[in-house]
Amino acid sequence: MKALIFDGNLKLVEQPRPECAPDDCLVRVLRAGICNTDLEITKGYFGFCGVLGHEFVGRVERSADSTLLGQRVVGEINVSCNRCEYCRNELGRHCPNRSVLGILNRDGAFRQYLTLPAQNLHVIPFSLSDDAAVFVEPLAAACEILDQLTISVLHRVAVLGDGKLGLLIAMVLSHTGCDLTLIGKHPAKMERLRGYTVKSASLPSSTVQPKSFDIVVEATGSPQGLEMALGLIKPRGILVLKSTFHGQVALNSASIVVDEITIVGSRCGRFTPALQLLTEGKIDPTNLIDATFPLEGALEAFAMASRPGVLKVLLTP
Amino acid sequence: MKALIFDGNLKLVEQPRPECAPDDCLVRVLRAGICNTDLEITKGYFGFCGVLGHEFVGRVERSADSTLLGQRVVGEINVSCNRCEYCRNELGRHCPNRSVLGILNRDGAFRQYLTLPAQNLHVIPFSLSDDAAVFVEPLAAACEILDQLTISVLHRVAVLGDGKLGLLIAMVLSHTGCDLTLIGKHPAKMERLRGYTVKSASLPSSTVQPKSFDIVVEATGSPQGLEMALGLIKPRGILVLKSTFHGQVALNSASIVVDEITIVGSRCGRFTPALQLLTEGKIDPTNLIDATFPLEGALEAFAMASRPGVLKVLLTP
Repeated sequence: MKALIFDGNLKLVEQPRPECAPDDCLVRVLRAGICNTDLEITKGYFGFCGVLGHEFVGRVERSADSTLLGQRVVGEINVSCNRCEYCRNELGRHCPNRSVLGILNRDGAFRQYLTLPAQNLHVIPFSLSDDAAVFVEPLAAACEILDQLTISVLHRVAVLGDGKLGLLIAMVLSHTGCDLTLIGKHPAKMERLRGYTVKSASLPSSTVQPKSFDIVVEATGSPQGLEMALGLIKPRGILVLKSTFHGQVALNSASIVVDEITIVGSRCGRFTPALQLLTEGKIDPTNLIDATFPLEGALEAFAMASRPGVLKVLLTP
Repeated sequence: MKALIFDGNLKLVEQPRPECAPDDCLVRVLRAGICNTDLEITKGYFGFCGVLGHEFVGRVERSADSTLLGQRVVGEINVSCNRCEYCRNELGRHCPNRSVLGILNRDGAFRQYLTLPAQNLHVIPFSLSDDAAVFVEPLAAACEILDQLTISVLHRVAVLGDGKLGLLIAMVLSHTGCDLTLIGKHPAKMERLRGYTVKSASLPSSTVQPKSFDIVVEATGSPQGLEMALGLIKPRGILVLKSTFHGQVALNSASIVVDEITIVGSRCGRFTPALQLLTEGKIDPTNLIDATFPLEGALEAFAMASRPGVLKVLLTP
């Protein structure tokens, strides 16, 4: 089968189908999404080598659990040990022994077949298209914010960054009733939020005052994002940090202390709330799709996904 | 009267006694403590020019409130507007219109007389010595942590940094019942915690594993402290950031996101809990005093306070 690997260079290769361990399921990949983390890995982030990709929807072709056979599924990307303190507290996403699909010690989704344990899979309803279902993983990362903090009609909130994740976060937070502003650079991207209760602004803006937000979600994917977010937040406010990238940031940490800011790191989330938002039709992320390529065109797809202004690029392995 | 000012250089000067506005009290300074923030201001932190000093105990010589006349007092250092959103929520410490004694737009305590509004002053009981009372301000900053998060017998906690503030924080947290380790570099400093339920360690240490603490309080006063603290904390743990210094820190922010760390900036605290701990004899910080100088010897006192290994240096204006 074909697979897109990174071993210092991005390459399309022929591989045998993966072996399927007794607890694992073999999944035929139907759609896979290119995420900013994939692009960062090709710059050295996390030092990962192997098959890239962690956003997918697929169909189960082999499983010890017969109820899964033939089902369309999405899959939680952290494969945990089920034994440690984190796993016992339903936080397998933080299991220190975990592997992570396409990110850490486990080949990912940019290939024709992948394997994951049955417990990682969620069957998706018939009503949900492949194009919508492939967003469950990044949408779960957006929903994670609501598992970490309370956001309500009482809060003035900014999402900083109009990339794929920033837009999904804005879609999710628009359902909290908060006073929400998406701060970005690209009017054409922010336009994709039409229909959601979200204001948009580009900096500098007369409607965006320094230190005026109770909560700022930093999703710029850029080393400048954290300092910019700190400039927007009120004293005693909360900054949710979402960006992961290869490299260091420079920071005036005294501002965090003086204004007693709380910074909350936020990564993967539970799939259930994301599936619920999609199934109930509260969010339709498919208007973020800019292109779909066959796996043979994966290098071209990566090149396109790296271009400013481009949002979600899908692969159909 | 004599005053120690910073105007790019540290100087002892003669000044008239300060004017006393109608709501202000005139306080004769009895003891004042040199804090790390004072040392940082002389390196450019906060761009402050004026009389330094914000830790003091004094006696009220003039006040519209006759019950204060002749009383020994300590003083909250943030002078707030009493009108804004923060002031209305009992968070005058974050009032955007505030001045701060010896730090922001208000002359400080390293002079013979200072002025502060009556509402900033706390009368101290007869039983409390001047040498103990002068620690109320930094001790309140240590107690602020307990106003911001719950620390209990269930938590494994590290205080990183064996300077003045780190030691005071360890003294306070020792009363929470948590499993507490002070991580420092100077055995002679850590020795001052004898009598408190605190383990001590110097890195590298076989008893201090990476990613093993639920809560880490960063009080190193150094740009390396934040990254070091991040290395000690468990996934989903809380890092309390206390250090303020002039300059920037370099940070691998992805670790905050991947491990979903919460960082809580923590600055000044309420005086009441600190006064209570001192009055009840639960904490005796006077063993942190390394020297006491008359105001005339302030330059010498600053030189001594800057030396590694030296803890609290007091002035008697």
